[in-house]
Amino acid sequence: MRPDPIAVIGAGLIGSAWAFGFARAGHPVTLWDQWPEAAQAAHARVTEIATDMQAAGLLDGQTPAQVAARVTLAPDLETCVKNALHVQESVSENVDVKRAVFAALDAAALPDAVLASSTSALLPSSFTETLKGRARCLVAHPINPPSLIPAVEIVPAPWTGATAMDRCAATMAGIGQKPIRMAREIDGFIMNRLQGALLQEAMRLVADGIATPEDIDTGIRDGLAPRWSLCGPFEAIDLNAPGGVRDYVARYGPMYRIIGARQTTLPDWEGATLDRIEAARRAALPLADLPKAQTRRDRRLMALMAHFRRETPQS
Amino acid sequence: MRPDPIAVIGAGLIGSAWAFGFARAGHPVTLWDQWPEAAQAAHARVTEIATDMQAAGLLDGQTPAQVAARVTLAPDLETCVKNALHVQESVSENVDVKRAVFAALDAAALPDAVLASSTSALLPSSFTETLKGRARCLVAHPINPPSLIPAVEIVPAPWTGATAMDRCAATMAGIGQKPIRMAREIDGFIMNRLQGALLQEAMRLVADGIATPEDIDTGIRDGLAPRWSLCGPFEAIDLNAPGGVRDYVARYGPMYRIIGARQTTLPDWEGATLDRIEAARRAALPLADLPKAQTRRDRRLMALMAHFRRETPQS
Repeated sequence: MRPDPIAVIGAGLIGSAWAFGFARAGHPVTLWDQWPEAAQAAHARVTEIATDMQAAGLLDGQTPAQVAARVTLAPDLETCVKNALHVQESVSENVDVKRAVFAALDAAALPDAVLASSTSALLPSSFTETLKGRARCLVAHPINPPSLIPAVEIVPAPWTGATAMDRCAATMAGIGQKPIRMAREIDGFIMNRLQGALLQEAMRLVADGIATPEDIDTGIRDGLAPRWSLCGPFEAIDLNAPGGVRDYVARYGPMYRIIGARQTTLPDWEGATLDRIEAARRAALPLADLPKAQTRRDRRLMALMAHFRRETPQS
Repeated sequence: MRPDPIAVIGAGLIGSAWAFGFARAGHPVTLWDQWPEAAQAAHARVTEIATDMQAAGLLDGQTPAQVAARVTLAPDLETCVKNALHVQESVSENVDVKRAVFAALDAAALPDAVLASSTSALLPSSFTETLKGRARCLVAHPINPPSLIPAVEIVPAPWTGATAMDRCAATMAGIGQKPIRMAREIDGFIMNRLQGALLQEAMRLVADGIATPEDIDTGIRDGLAPRWSLCGPFEAIDLNAPGGVRDYVARYGPMYRIIGARQTTLPDWEGATLDRIEAARRAALPLADLPKAQTRRDRRLMALMAHFRRETPQS
């Protein structure tokens, strides 16, 4: 079966990473951005990602040139989506922009193309309601960069059809992503709700003077996250009591109930708390070195994902 | 400098892992358990851990026999702690048992020995208040297994002296742990408060029918945790906005505020929610296979920590 043609709309960091991910899996990809220079840069970026991925052993025996050759630039949105069966939109996080782009996509795309937005902060209902083809519109929210991190949330608006959900999940699984198929839309989807809950407590601990920002990072990085990166939180607690998750809740539920009772007020994320966190981060990393640190993190993430691919039993 | 003698009290999974960790770093370790068979088994367990660690490249060029030879069994608590400068207690999580053991330790240990408990759920004030040497009593709470996971919380009771805190942190850093030095005791310390906040939201999402337990595990395992295992949550958000953490809060703070407003009630961890989580876990892993899965997780964790050791620039 020949992989479906894919259109990627918006050629920033997320769009480029998506273009790479689809192309690596063999899809022909068309790419368009309202700024032609951005699309040109994204094409170069795909080759760059592919080269790094090859070095990490993550290119499945292909050459960067083979992968990059599957990505072609389109002169306009209409040409870009003309033959696509999946459209991945990654333009700026602005509801009016998304509305305009989705109206154009719905008008130009094939009737059975799935229209997916990469938005992390907007609900799909907020920019698809009035569209004729709203049943094939949804959110497919990745964790940055989707070229490395497999989880992706497939989020329906109230009017999204099951067919579009199914096809989007299948497309994502086909390129090696791990789709999370949500039953309905909710602010923050699932991953940012979980991240938000963790950050709320982290902010609370800093605001209350219980922990420094470095303590929080040490506790997660060198404490909880290595296990979570193998198991996820439910599997982790299931494996942490002789009788599984029910036994864990019987043993530790009372402690979490006591803790939880003090986690019901929202801390202030700004003012003195943010000052303290920023001071700690800037002491560890001057702002001028941030891009270098991002590159280093991406390299380490690539090595980590290559490690998981070698170590994890294929299912 | 010859490494300080260490006493390990309680020879379960945590005690054995501690004995290994101290011995690997060169400390002479005495080990005692109220059940002599448990202490015997722990000695064998130390050799087993050391053998696995050697295979993973985590034994610093030593042989398992060299490491195991540093651990000797003591016939009673008094003999065990006689020469120790750091005592690590890992008996059962029962406040009366801890009280009795700490009274015995305080009576038998050298005046300047630090007395550290591995408890995860009890505050140090709850079992050390009446002791003459209460200023040298504290909690040093590891994440299981401490032979692999470096983070350890050093938690003072209100009467714990700064010297004991300093010495415990130095001992822990000396064996390669990453001590988190807390300013004061609080239920759940830092790591379980963070884990608790994440689990509360995970339970809420399952209770509300937004996510399945598998969705939660996918979102953390294949989404957020790989990055957290490199960076911790504050460094992660600092690297996720062009202007660092302050810029991140300006961009995403409003979204987290909206999410947070729905995270202020505590979900029920039992009843139908727990039934659903247990059903999902038991479908993925029959209870009879739990020990095998724990062993597999420990092997994968060992490989992961070996990966980090190879990849992480030494600081």
